[in-house]
Amino acid sequence: MPLWKIYHPAGAYTDDDKNAFSKSITSLYELVPIPKFYVVCVFEEMPAGTIYVGGERHDQFVRIRVDQIARTMPGQIVREWWVSQLERVIGPWVKDRGYDWEISVDETPFDLWSLQGEIPPPFESIAEKRWVAENKALSYGQAEKLPASMNGLTLPGMTG
Amino acid sequence: MPLWKIYHPAGAYTDDDKNAFSKSITSLYELVPIPKFYVVCVFEEMPAGTIYVGGERHDQFVRIRVDQIARTMPGQIVREWWVSQLERVIGPWVKDRGYDWEISVDETPFDLWSLQGEIPPPFESIAEKRWVAENKALSYGQAEKLPASMNGLTLPGMTG
Amino acid sequence: MPLWKIYHPAGAYTDDDKNAFSKSITSLYELVPIPKFYVVCVFEEMPAGTIYVGGERHDQFVRIRVDQIARTMPGQIVREWWVSQLERVIGPWVKDRGYDWEISVDETPFDLWSLQGEIPPPFESIAEKRWVAENKALSYGQAEKLPASMNGLTLPGMTG
Repeated sequence: MPLWKIYHPAGAYTDDDKNAFSKSITSLYELVPIPKFYVVCVFEEMPAGTIYVGGERHDQFVRIRVDQIARTMPGQIVREWWVSQLERVIGPWVKDRGYDWEISVDETPFDLWSLQGEIPPPFESIAEKRWVAENKALSYGQAEKLPASMNGLTLPGMTG
Repeated sequence: MPLWKIYHPAGAYTDDDKNAFSKSITSLYELVPIPKFYVVCVFEEMPAGTIYVGGERHDQFVRIRVDQIARTMPGQIVREWWVSQLERVIGPWVKDRGYDWEISVDETPFDLWSLQGEIPPPFESIAEKRWVAENKALSYGQAEKLPASMNGLTLPGMTG
Repeated sequence: MPLWKIYHPAGAYTDDDKNAFSKSITSLYELVPIPKFYVVCVFEEMPAGTIYVGGERHDQFVRIRVDQIARTMPGQIVREWWVSQLERVIGPWVKDRGYDWEISVDETPFDLWSLQGEIPPPFESIAEKRWVAENKALSYGQAEKLPASMNGLTLPGMTG
């Protein structure tokens, strides 16, 4: 997670394009940051005559569908900003290439997900920092599920 | 949105079939109404030996999976009616052709979605009426996010 | 439902493999039990150069994405157990074959789903038992929507 499905016209992207496109998508999530290897892009080449928009065949259309983890984009401001970031990243591959396009994001449960047989550690946890640093799934213990930073967990006036 | 993924046996539908099928799907949403170009159908031709039902290979099976916007189908009566409408639309392409079939709808967030770089206007808004009329994504201002009709926003006995 | 989408490298699985893999997945849901024919597996063969993980092309990656019905996996204990069961079932087809892999489950609405034109009966209902026994979609009446067993519907001390 995230999982990007990119339905694109046959021949729209070379292997080099797909590499660069997926790197650009990945860099967006590195801002968060989450482990780079969480970001999976599946390019699905659609033959002519397989995509219809508003009941009309459309052979120059790119449809992107993303699965992200639920509750990681809280609040209207962050969500609008995120959509603008998605558009910034995909723009060079859709608009600038003369394709029509649409993108939508679904939000799926955190706790029904695993990677290489490991349940991913909580966001911002000590274990996740290690996954980010080593860029692969690693075993971790209970203590590493704790937040890497206690910032934001205490309130002014708390004494303990 | 909506996004229809139609997994079908290789050779099940000609280009003319796909055109007619997608027109029929689109007409269902025109009842709402939403802009026609919101309706995207992706036909995915599955080679023999790629679909298994209950652990048995099934080469005459059509599986349809739809993404719709969450909270636009409120209440049990509307939702049951909607399923019956889906069945009415797909019937000629599945049952009447001798295929087995299944359809399911997922509901995804309204606010993580964009089209041609534009965040779609609120349902029933002034801007959406313009999108319906011109059948394409257009820039719009804050004032056009208001409902096109104030019907239903006032209650009997309200004085202001 | 459930719907399993299995994105796998071209040539990873023979028809016999896919048959055995889908039987193994189906057996997991028979534990619940739900009708066997609810379990649909779609094997999607991805050509080299179509999957990118963390911005790097990865031709030995299996990505599995499952749709299940919302609210059927209640509570943290059951959900963790379920992920472990998924891993147990897929292990021989991914880890043991030397592939990298990831699996995630989405939860979709029960009431926007139909099979062969029939809205599936409530879980654990009399009608569902009949669907399990006959392993196909059948018409059913209002009375068959009742639970097959009243166990768990009464509490100690209830007198009626």
